[in-house]
Amino acid sequence: MRAHDVRIALPDWVDTFVPWDRRHESAGERMALAIALSGENVARGTGGPFGAVVFDGETRHPVAVGVNLVEDARNAVLHAEIVALMLAQATIGRYTLNAPDLPPHTLVTSCEPCAMCLGAILWSGVQDLECGATREDAVRIGFDEGPVFPASYAYLSARGIRVQLGVRRADAAAVLVAYRRTGGTIYNP
Amino acid sequence: MRAHDVRIALPDWVDTFVPWDRRHESAGERMALAIALSGENVARGTGGPFGAVVFDGETRHPVAVGVNLVEDARNAVLHAEIVALMLAQATIGRYTLNAPDLPPHTLVTSCEPCAMCLGAILWSGVQDLECGATREDAVRIGFDEGPVFPASYAYLSARGIRVQLGVRRADAAAVLVAYRRTGGTIYNP
Repeated sequence: MRAHDVRIALPDWVDTFVPWDRRHESAGERMALAIALSGENVARGTGGPFGAVVFDGETRHPVAVGVNLVEDARNAVLHAEIVALMLAQATIGRYTLNAPDLPPHTLVTSCEPCAMCLGAILWSGVQDLECGATREDAVRIGFDEGPVFPASYAYLSARGIRVQLGVRRADAAAVLVAYRRTGGTIYNP
Repeated sequence: MRAHDVRIALPDWVDTFVPWDRRHESAGERMALAIALSGENVARGTGGPFGAVVFDGETRHPVAVGVNLVEDARNAVLHAEIVALMLAQATIGRYTLNAPDLPPHTLVTSCEPCAMCLGAILWSGVQDLECGATREDAVRIGFDEGPVFPASYAYLSARGIRVQLGVRRADAAAVLVAYRRTGGTIYNP
């Protein structure tokens, strides 16, 4: 059976889990939501320990969220950041979130992006990136983050994307450690 | 309207365009199909000048194909390689194309992958990568390929992915030049 299309959908629990109309003023508040999504995704058994949120820079409301769906959707592309960015673009109706008539957008991710997601962030039009757990935290439990170098982040900066690392790192990393402890699948080890 | 799912589908012309049951023995034959898809995508007005094919390494048949859908689908993630890999995984029903009970798989792309696609290739389970036009060919017409470095390809090699660059490069680059000449959108310039 040759597949001609793919439907990407969040697990059912997500919509009621997200406080769509709450202002998330600080980086810490924004990250708390991304981390909560990562933990809930594991608790519900719907995927890996990663969560991401695209925020509207003016209303400070979540525009779209993502959780890791690789295993359940049988699709290696569906990291949390990719899911959040695709849904944000679908919501806005454009292939870029950066336009003169749009507010700026921030991507908040519970873990530093892998090579694929870092590239996707560059094309997405987000103007700010906030990360929780570090590459080392992900590698420590067995995940591979791919070819991401200091020069990769410099490339984002040169394109005007502001990056903040280590936001609530301990809380974010704790979800990774708990996932490992429960025997969660480490895909692409 | 908040989007809760995204459906990714190839343009209607693709299915009849692809010779699904033809053996593609050589890298040149395989690349000819990827280039033909890139050119047809432009000619039909369904997207950017990029095509990609996942081949079964035993039957040498195409398993799945992709064309660039960024503009039409309003989704910056939908580069040709990403579309082909997602559809191949959907066809096989796994999040990796690399398993003891599966044949090896080759990804053939009409242009060297951007940073996002290079990362996706790493996670996809393909064991061979064959590229047509070079990064320089894409940059010359205004596309950005993102943070891809020699060390990025070394990372693929270290993971056992064989890479062949410059397959039918002139034919592949000609599609890019023609696209530029007709005023095609250069997204993410």
